Amino acid sequence: MDENRFKRQLDFILEIDKEKQVYRQTHITGHVRRENDAEHAWHMAVMIYLLKEYANEDFDVARAMTMALIHDVVEIDAGDTYAYDEAALATKDEREKAAADRIFGILPDDQRDALRGLFEEFEAGKTPEAKFARTMDNFQPLLLNDSNGGADWREHGVTKSQVTRRQKNSQLTSDTIWDYTSELIERNVESGNIKDE
Amino acid sequence: MDENRFKRQLDFILEIDKEKQVYRQTHITGHVRRENDAEHAWHMAVMIYLLKEYANEDFDVARAMTMALIHDVVEIDAGDTYAYDEAALATKDEREKAAADRIFGILPDDQRDALRGLFEEFEAGKTPEAKFARTMDNFQPLLLNDSNGGADWREHGVTKSQVTRRQKNSQLTSDTIWDYTSELIERNVESGNIKDE
Repeated sequence: MDENRFKRQLDFILEIDKEKQVYRQTHITGHVRRENDAEHAWHMAVMIYLLKEYANEDFDVARAMTMALIHDVVEIDAGDTYAYDEAALATKDEREKAAADRIFGILPDDQRDALRGLFEEFEAGKTPEAKFARTMDNFQPLLLNDSNGGADWREHGVTKSQVTRRQKNSQLTSDTIWDYTSELIERNVESGNIKDE
Repeated sequence: MDENRFKRQLDFILEIDKEKQVYRQTHITGHVRRENDAEHAWHMAVMIYLLKEYANEDFDVARAMTMALIHDVVEIDAGDTYAYDEAALATKDEREKAAADRIFGILPDDQRDALRGLFEEFEAGKTPEAKFARTMDNFQPLLLNDSNGGADWREHGVTKSQVTRRQKNSQLTSDTIWDYTSELIERNVESGNIKDE
């Protein structure tokens, strides 16, 4: 037993506990409070398991779930960047790279490389696993926001083209999810929750 | 595309969002606030991935992670039962069975059976996947509580024999985790965080 290895793994486990204090713009059901990154990642991983049959391409479910579970670790340092905040989006990559160096660097080298690799694969969004995980990353807050009467969209004055652009990855990943997403957006435009410019 | 099937899956996804409002006795790091079931399940799943090398028996990591992600779904109806509350423990099984019938019953039959099966396998604790997932279920709050100076143990006046009994599953599952657990308990007994009767 390599005591230093085990210690680094435990240090990482305690470090990522801080994700429970990184709050997103999305509210949980009932609009009770904002959602945090740890809860969001959990929800995404369960959704990957449940909705995998709708992926246009086959993918490795365990790999996609692991990607979902760790994809927001960098936000411990870099913070949550709201999907419709253009100024914050401009510096997002740089902030997240420094965070990835520090946080994944806590792990033993083999696990650092494996999780850093999954994180970068997720960010690149090219593999079937990354595409499906990214679709869940967008679809999950869409479902929550819709269940809350679109309160988050109304609060931020979000437009139809902004929501559609954010969800467009779903179009390449899953016909079923994209069809449902398009209908959901139309319904929320008609009810005035999403602005039609 | 079976619209009723997709609807049932989305209904379940929104139903389990309520896990984010089931609060446990354990506090997150910094003792900032109590932890909820969704965050706990996320943390357990990441720990299964990171610590799998310490399992005494080989196991299917994806299966154990999925088990971890859904093991507390029943607490939406049945509530969290504190590990050291003997009265609540007496009615736990009955309350959780009714909850499992209702909540897993929202899903299409095949997914209901698959997740109900994983939940019951976790509860029975016999397979290598269930044993490792259960060890993480106990080890995760132990790590958090230790990082918080044992505040939760002190608040509830928890004794060494209670903590040891709760962690004893680890002894059968992982020599490394059990050795670390034993040292951690001793250290907290010596510092007075855990009562030595």
